[in-house]
Amino acid sequence: MRAFTATAIAAVALIASPLAAQSVDRAEIARIIDEGFNHSQIMQTAQTLMDGIGPRLTNSPGMRRAEDWTMARYRDWGLKNVHKEGFEFGRGWWAERFSARMVSPRPIELTAMAITWTPGTPGRVSAPVIVAPITSVDHFARYKGKLAGKIVMVTLPDDGSEPGAAPFKRWSGEELAKFDTYEQPKYDPEAADRRIKRLDFATRLDAFLKAEGAVAYATMSSRDGKLLHGNGYLFGTGETQQVPGFEIAAEDYRRLARLAKVGPAPVVELESVVHFEDADTKAYNVFADIPGTDPSGAYVMAGAHLDSWTAGDGAADNGAGTAMVMEAARILQAMGVKPKRTIRFALWAGEEQGLLGSMAYVEQHIATRKPAAGAPSTGLARFYGWANRWPVTRQPGYGQLAAYFNLDNGSGKIRGINAENNLAAVPMLREWLSPFGSMGANTVAIRKVGGTDHVFFSAVGIPAFQFIQDPLDYGSRLHHTSIDTFDHLKPADMRQAAVILAAFLLQAANAEKPLPRGAFPTEPSVTDPFGYPDPSDLD
Amino acid sequence: MRAFTATAIAAVALIASPLAAQSVDRAEIARIIDEGFNHSQIMQTAQTLMDGIGPRLTNSPGMRRAEDWTMARYRDWGLKNVHKEGFEFGRGWWAERFSARMVSPRPIELTAMAITWTPGTPGRVSAPVIVAPITSVDHFARYKGKLAGKIVMVTLPDDGSEPGAAPFKRWSGEELAKFDTYEQPKYDPEAADRRIKRLDFATRLDAFLKAEGAVAYATMSSRDGKLLHGNGYLFGTGETQQVPGFEIAAEDYRRLARLAKVGPAPVVELESVVHFEDADTKAYNVFADIPGTDPSGAYVMAGAHLDSWTAGDGAADNGAGTAMVMEAARILQAMGVKPKRTIRFALWAGEEQGLLGSMAYVEQHIATRKPAAGAPSTGLARFYGWANRWPVTRQPGYGQLAAYFNLDNGSGKIRGINAENNLAAVPMLREWLSPFGSMGANTVAIRKVGGTDHVFFSAVGIPAFQFIQDPLDYGSRLHHTSIDTFDHLKPADMRQAAVILAAFLLQAANAEKPLPRGAFPTEPSVTDPFGYPDPSDLD
Repeated sequence: MRAFTATAIAAVALIASPLAAQSVDRAEIARIIDEGFNHSQIMQTAQTLMDGIGPRLTNSPGMRRAEDWTMARYRDWGLKNVHKEGFEFGRGWWAERFSARMVSPRPIELTAMAITWTPGTPGRVSAPVIVAPITSVDHFARYKGKLAGKIVMVTLPDDGSEPGAAPFKRWSGEELAKFDTYEQPKYDPEAADRRIKRLDFATRLDAFLKAEGAVAYATMSSRDGKLLHGNGYLFGTGETQQVPGFEIAAEDYRRLARLAKVGPAPVVELESVVHFEDADTKAYNVFADIPGTDPSGAYVMAGAHLDSWTAGDGAADNGAGTAMVMEAARILQAMGVKPKRTIRFALWAGEEQGLLGSMAYVEQHIATRKPAAGAPSTGLARFYGWANRWPVTRQPGYGQLAAYFNLDNGSGKIRGINAENNLAAVPMLREWLSPFGSMGANTVAIRKVGGTDHVFFSAVGIPAFQFIQDPLDYGSRLHHTSIDTFDHLKPADMRQAAVILAAFLLQAANAEKPLPRGAFPTEPSVTDPFGYPDPSDLD
Repeated sequence: MRAFTATAIAAVALIASPLAAQSVDRAEIARIIDEGFNHSQIMQTAQTLMDGIGPRLTNSPGMRRAEDWTMARYRDWGLKNVHKEGFEFGRGWWAERFSARMVSPRPIELTAMAITWTPGTPGRVSAPVIVAPITSVDHFARYKGKLAGKIVMVTLPDDGSEPGAAPFKRWSGEELAKFDTYEQPKYDPEAADRRIKRLDFATRLDAFLKAEGAVAYATMSSRDGKLLHGNGYLFGTGETQQVPGFEIAAEDYRRLARLAKVGPAPVVELESVVHFEDADTKAYNVFADIPGTDPSGAYVMAGAHLDSWTAGDGAADNGAGTAMVMEAARILQAMGVKPKRTIRFALWAGEEQGLLGSMAYVEQHIATRKPAAGAPSTGLARFYGWANRWPVTRQPGYGQLAAYFNLDNGSGKIRGINAENNLAAVPMLREWLSPFGSMGANTVAIRKVGGTDHVFFSAVGIPAFQFIQDPLDYGSRLHHTSIDTFDHLKPADMRQAAVILAAFLLQAANAEKPLPRGAFPTEPSVTDPFGYPDPSDLD
């Protein structure tokens, strides 16, 4: 690893040397480090957001409080142009109370939670369970007439896990080196359509369960160890489900399934008190600026999604990124920087339902795509379809956004940045990263990564990047789970990430020339003429 | 590992060759394997015990059902002398319903459970929490007058875990080889007294909380990841606690503690419905025999504890061992074996409270020790004190018990056996293990291990052994936790262990000579004349 590090630094020196004089001198970066390490407020920000406000499902009261509170903090700190921008989303939802217990053949408190955007129960209800694994509409016939008055367990139970890898880890030098591998893009123009077709299954299952008179349905947690998630995706006005849904911990689910098979048959008592909020169906992204001096309106932007799921407190996903972005804003504001380009801080809504907040910003300010033939109604359908429509048309603000930096990989320290196949940007990214090798951040990796809010910026040709962070236990046990709480965040890592983000923003804002852009995206014409669709994409 | 295996087999051959002709021929062992692998009932036994009966806290209704059911199964299978033997234990206890939720500043369902043998709440109660870390009576003064009407959080919260090891593992050859290391015994005659003195803290804390008017007290789970344990040790008649106690998942506990510190102050709503059972204060060990032909009354015995804690279903601890012992009984009975020595199958009670069931058997049938000066009233005090009293006096049955084999390390397959410093027994143990090298069981390790029901047999000089099993995820996440459930057992491992246990029992029962015993235990006279007590043993 030492050998790797030395090589990486040598490479940076070699490539960085032909560049123009550094846009930000090391003394400024030392001030960022002093403010970020000696006067940090990042964990206080995180604690209020996660413990105090808690989960922030888009359009829920928690998310509304988070919108108000983050704007208030930005104003307290003196940032400018603090505001929010709305986009049509759907219903708000929150769970006030939930309990599930097996009452027969013996009493057990079940670890379970309501699936988001499903209705509550009419008080406390007791019903026998039935195991009815249903994964496609073809299975409905098998259970017709058998579900009335039942709690329907729709997941096929598995055999449990043998977790042979450590839950908590940091990247080795060798692993980081592998990320710097260019992969040629693959183009499968029908993949998105296949996924969209599959999306209506949840709606059809709900209609089937309602017609059959089911009391509720239950899914099994995809993780062992009593962890829960509770994710549901039917949040649009007029499309939320009619049958209460809940997720049961894998251990509890499997026990119910075994008892249902060999007897005595279990009876479960269920109480779910939830609330829908329909006064405002718009979701809101939150923004704050440190204004730049350049009259062209050019800006650079950092972003993280403020919304979360509901099982935990949205800590690693993505209170951590939110707190890093807010802390970078606080650091730069506290230093009184007067950047050339405006520095904008964005907190997105609706990320968990398909990057909907950043998508809305791109559509409103950056670029549009050809409208969909039949506009898809749900978030995930929009997500799957959005980057698949051509051509891309620049909005007037297209040229003003010089760079976008995203954080959404938990609380691990920054180890580098993914260049998103933008070879032209690599030298400047290396220069901006070069002060931070001694903090573990050495890697500019060419690879393209998906799944979070830089994606749609990148898809229209903006230099938009996601940082590489140490994984810690984010993927193994925190991601979307009931233990995604403040106490699993690592304060030293959080401070380092905020410092590096602040330095990147200042360097990008003051760079003599903006970051080079890749080629403007046009419809690909290379497909695999001999390929068949991935069976996992088929109905 | 291959090299290690070859060496181990060579060593077995070398040492085993001078022994008398094998007591059981390979054809008999092949019949055990056929019955155990091709006609196994071990997972059905385990499922009824864990799913159907569930947790088996000593003297609880679950344990009573387990006593009855295991005896009925033994009788169904045709075993003889099926009976139970009682010993004075204390109160029965079970939890019918439990819930805990934070109601202010925002609603959260808390993952929590009642601590065993603590009283229920008077219905649903709401109270503010106070963080009052109390680990010794010296801390009482600090909180006097501050606890009335409060839920008292008595654990000091920690910073959370960074689990850097894989939860699920099997022993490597190198690890197994290290177990074969003789360690000289250490003798610290005051260690037990120091531990016993510390034991009354729970009682004094309860009295303090009661006098102060606390609503309830709460501890933090010692494991992250929402796992719970709920172990309490005050089960004696007249000594159970007066203040309701509950354990809170670490993530939920730490959040409450942070909110209590920085505000807004949390209010928790609690409901605990529990029942005490005092009709019979005796606990019962369950026995069944396959009678031997030897008129001397000699016998060999296998044992596992039937009792469990209450957070899960007592699967790895120790439904697995129970099912292995019962399956070995079924296999041998199904084969119609007529052994020379009687083969006895023991299922112990009160193991979790200090090996009390096996201790009672030793006292009633094998050997006694000098009575304690002031008889300790609680199980753990008896446990700490018992092996520390001299001299040991043989009971009439002392010579009849030729060998005792214990299983209590979860559902992992048998990799070998610990020889408990009994060098004289090693050659025969190697001979009996030799058929099973190809199933992963190669190791006879000299080491002495503690913590389960062979201990007090061994302490009075009986050749008593605990098998070495693959650890799997027993220690890392199942031991005493809320996920100690049937679905974390490994069926192939369970079958292998039952087969090897059955073969050991048959070989030990038919061996021409009984297993050699070590020297008869007498009071040690070597202590460290320059040592100081371990500070962790002090108040």
